[in-house]
Amino acid sequence: MEKYYIGVDIGGTSIKLGMFSRAGQLLEKWEIATRAEDEGVNILPDVVASIEEKRAEKDGNIIGIGVGVPGPITDDGMVLKCANINWPMFNVRNRLVELTGVGKVKIGNDANVAALGEMWKGGGRGYDSIVMVTLGTGVGGGVILGGKMLTGSKGAAGEIGHITVNPDETEVCGCGKRGCLEQYSSATGIVRIAKKELREDSSLASLKEITAKDIFDAAKEEDPYALSVVEKFAEYLGLALGNIAQVVDPEAFVIGGGVSRAGDIIINHIEKYYNNNVMFALRDKDFRLAELGNDAGIYGAVRMVL
Amino acid sequence: MEKYYIGVDIGGTSIKLGMFSRAGQLLEKWEIATRAEDEGVNILPDVVASIEEKRAEKDGNIIGIGVGVPGPITDDGMVLKCANINWPMFNVRNRLVELTGVGKVKIGNDANVAALGEMWKGGGRGYDSIVMVTLGTGVGGGVILGGKMLTGSKGAAGEIGHITVNPDETEVCGCGKRGCLEQYSSATGIVRIAKKELREDSSLASLKEITAKDIFDAAKEEDPYALSVVEKFAEYLGLALGNIAQVVDPEAFVIGGGVSRAGDIIINHIEKYYNNNVMFALRDKDFRLAELGNDAGIYGAVRMVL
Repeated sequence: MEKYYIGVDIGGTSIKLGMFSRAGQLLEKWEIATRAEDEGVNILPDVVASIEEKRAEKDGNIIGIGVGVPGPITDDGMVLKCANINWPMFNVRNRLVELTGVGKVKIGNDANVAALGEMWKGGGRGYDSIVMVTLGTGVGGGVILGGKMLTGSKGAAGEIGHITVNPDETEVCGCGKRGCLEQYSSATGIVRIAKKELREDSSLASLKEITAKDIFDAAKEEDPYALSVVEKFAEYLGLALGNIAQVVDPEAFVIGGGVSRAGDIIINHIEKYYNNNVMFALRDKDFRLAELGNDAGIYGAVRMVL
Repeated sequence: MEKYYIGVDIGGTSIKLGMFSRAGQLLEKWEIATRAEDEGVNILPDVVASIEEKRAEKDGNIIGIGVGVPGPITDDGMVLKCANINWPMFNVRNRLVELTGVGKVKIGNDANVAALGEMWKGGGRGYDSIVMVTLGTGVGGGVILGGKMLTGSKGAAGEIGHITVNPDETEVCGCGKRGCLEQYSSATGIVRIAKKELREDSSLASLKEITAKDIFDAAKEEDPYALSVVEKFAEYLGLALGNIAQVVDPEAFVIGGGVSRAGDIIINHIEKYYNNNVMFALRDKDFRLAELGNDAGIYGAVRMVL
């Protein structure tokens, strides 16, 4: 019988699954809904039933399952708090082994897992140590050093969205503190900046609702106000990435998430501020755009067990 | 014949050496002067001659040599630039193997090596992942994750003295950029802050020359101005350590260097600002004072080869 490996990426609204060959080829991918009610008690059984259905179809054996979850996870698979899916504290790895009988099960934080996926098959190919920044509704991050995900002692390594970049900020971040990177460089953050002192002569002023994409599109058209907003976005992001480099000195940064679809304009703007905020030995790092989009999670998840 | 292991800590003015047993016991320590002239060409031969002299005295064999050097070093022992001792770029490890015939030779950055020493036998005992901060003339740092020193792709991991903590700073740091942690939380940095708006009613105003020790001593005596200077020092240090935790999530921070001799007052002041600058999962980390003083380097150096 064929041997299969499964990558699972659990999100707040949907769960992505991928079936892979031993050689790491994606054979099939699919999604199921996330049932987050009742402390998310149905989530793992739903995942297991969906995997079993696919396995029966293919008449094969599942050898390994890797899972990315949206919260801090320790190396042995203990989830500490998973706000998005209402999970209480429990050992996800042990529970999944119980439910499936599969011995090779690994659990990781979703952002770390996506970083691993991008290094394996995406924008980070060819590197051994990267920091991935995911610019979405929030700002997530994943640190890979010497080919391995950095988990941290409380499962909170790579939470770079909550690096303080502006101690003078007065508005409060979702995490409860002030001046977090996420308040400036996420999709919602850049819109927040844009709305603050929106100038009448900007093309953005005519829009009913402003999105991150609108801002980058206007900046590409040389709208001066939109450009100034992108500069602010890049200033804080460059500062944060510079400070990260001073700590872990990666080979490259990989920029992903919805905001990164704006493309090279992001990298071009970040690099200047990055170089201003690092010592000489750390200048001119490689900056790459992520390539796997929403599949980074299933690639990285399966990579943990391949 | 007895088997010995040597730890070497190369500094700008002196080189510290330690002879250790296989079990990691320090048998003897001594120092020689650093001859930094002529691109530091005499340094390694001086080290080798001094080790050989000690070896002959003891009539034993040298099995391993670990060396800490004051600059960025790659994992394979290549020094990129060593300003303090005028070294050009060369492979320190290979050169030392040539000169000694000893096969087990490892080279590390001095701050990383000191961190390893403190984790092994000092303030970081019992932990597996720590960030050490050395508050001396400058601010150095070392990151140990899962028991291993983090070197970084350019040998510049843990250079936390040059994390930008104040983007609005107008004075330039020794590294050429502005607003580095070192400009506030080193021995020279805290004196710089104190002198800036020195108040006449402070006991510090009567001193001919102010040192970091004077400031902490006055703060312990509840001198309001000295206390405000210590607050500033701690505010920037707490911010930097918070941002470091968001990236690597260590178990503990170990604070060393000359400034740390001020004792618990440092930790008490840092913790508040640290907790204000991290997300919930990262609060209330352990903060420890370093214990090995100037011997941290030889302990850490030998630890690399034991």
